[in-house]
Amino acid sequence: MILVPVTPQLSTTERSTIRRGSKRARTDRSELHAVLDAALICHLGIVVDGAPRVLPTGFGRSGETLYLHGSTGARSLREAAEEPEICVAVTHLDGIVYARSAFHFSVNYRSAVIHGRPRQVTDPDEKWRALQVITEHLAPGSWEHARQPNKRELAATAVIALDLAEAAVKMRGEGPNDEPEDVEANKAWAGVLPLETRWGAPEPSGDLAPGFEVPAHVLERRCSA
Amino acid sequence: MILVPVTPQLSTTERSTIRRGSKRARTDRSELHAVLDAALICHLGIVVDGAPRVLPTGFGRSGETLYLHGSTGARSLREAAEEPEICVAVTHLDGIVYARSAFHFSVNYRSAVIHGRPRQVTDPDEKWRALQVITEHLAPGSWEHARQPNKRELAATAVIALDLAEAAVKMRGEGPNDEPEDVEANKAWAGVLPLETRWGAPEPSGDLAPGFEVPAHVLERRCSA
Repeated sequence: MILVPVTPQLSTTERSTIRRGSKRARTDRSELHAVLDAALICHLGIVVDGAPRVLPTGFGRSGETLYLHGSTGARSLREAAEEPEICVAVTHLDGIVYARSAFHFSVNYRSAVIHGRPRQVTDPDEKWRALQVITEHLAPGSWEHARQPNKRELAATAVIALDLAEAAVKMRGEGPNDEPEDVEANKAWAGVLPLETRWGAPEPSGDLAPGFEVPAHVLERRCSA
Repeated sequence: MILVPVTPQLSTTERSTIRRGSKRARTDRSELHAVLDAALICHLGIVVDGAPRVLPTGFGRSGETLYLHGSTGARSLREAAEEPEICVAVTHLDGIVYARSAFHFSVNYRSAVIHGRPRQVTDPDEKWRALQVITEHLAPGSWEHARQPNKRELAATAVIALDLAEAAVKMRGEGPNDEPEDVEANKAWAGVLPLETRWGAPEPSGDLAPGFEVPAHVLERRCSA
């Protein structure tokens, strides 16, 4: 395990300093954690042959480390692990902001962008814990409920780690910022149309044995959304 | 306007050819359009000083062109316009796939990844149409309802265009693919927990004149989700 120096405040490197809409910037590390923990997937950015590539992928967080996994046969994750640097973005879209002018239309969101050097996880213990973290992030309660990986499955899975040291968190959660003359004119509706994410009803697999009830860790999740 | 040669089939360049899970690849251009049109934001990948950067941003589509916009003061969009290449990813997460083994946990999704050389939109007519397209994508009915941009606002807005020529579309929408021995063992629940996105109730702006009713183009949207 590599120990990362952690400060309660987010880094202020040149590229992770928010310039546009700096009043939307958040600086508490707990807010970074909250944005990550509430998300199910992230977008991984890598450079391949000098060109950018963005890939949606699952992840998990353990303290100040983000874990990503993929098949050892997947070129992208292999390439990512060899890169001097990667970027991970996590975004929640919370609503559309309707303004009186097209110019001031906006969105409410919670966003985190992390930069860092990836580290291939080769230590068997850390890899095991990382897979547990990723599984529990995607589907809490499943690591103990489902069959855990065997040797062959472990070997077929690549895991990379990314320190959360360099990150930027930005949020917007308010109504439109219209021009005073547009507010005065009173010609257009203004407000927020919130966007919500909900779990639907669990759909048992077609080959599940009859009478196998949906377990509590799946049912409870639905109630929490 | 630059005319793009369009084929009904998606490109099959080396990097947009799907290798992993190729049975999930889609090749119809209409499926690319559907994935884009159903999304509200995208993740833009650029290379800055040799390192990848991923930024969530709004967009709009007109035929085979994707438009992105931002403040002329935002360094990232300025940088993107000067890049020889950018990447845009659009992802819908449709559900969590619970398997009998941790190894086979997965997600159901619809994904599009587009590669191309960005083009700064400078022609005033195209820029105007692009802003209309982006506004209507984010909030249908709003371009005519709200005040349209004035000269100052137009000058403060940068627009870039990206051809949809080189794109990869991938989808998964099914139950788990478990090992036969795990199905036989019947020890864990397997199925899909669907994820749904819904509009909440419109929240009028605090400074809206009393009695200003929520217009049809906002209300209707809620019913369509």
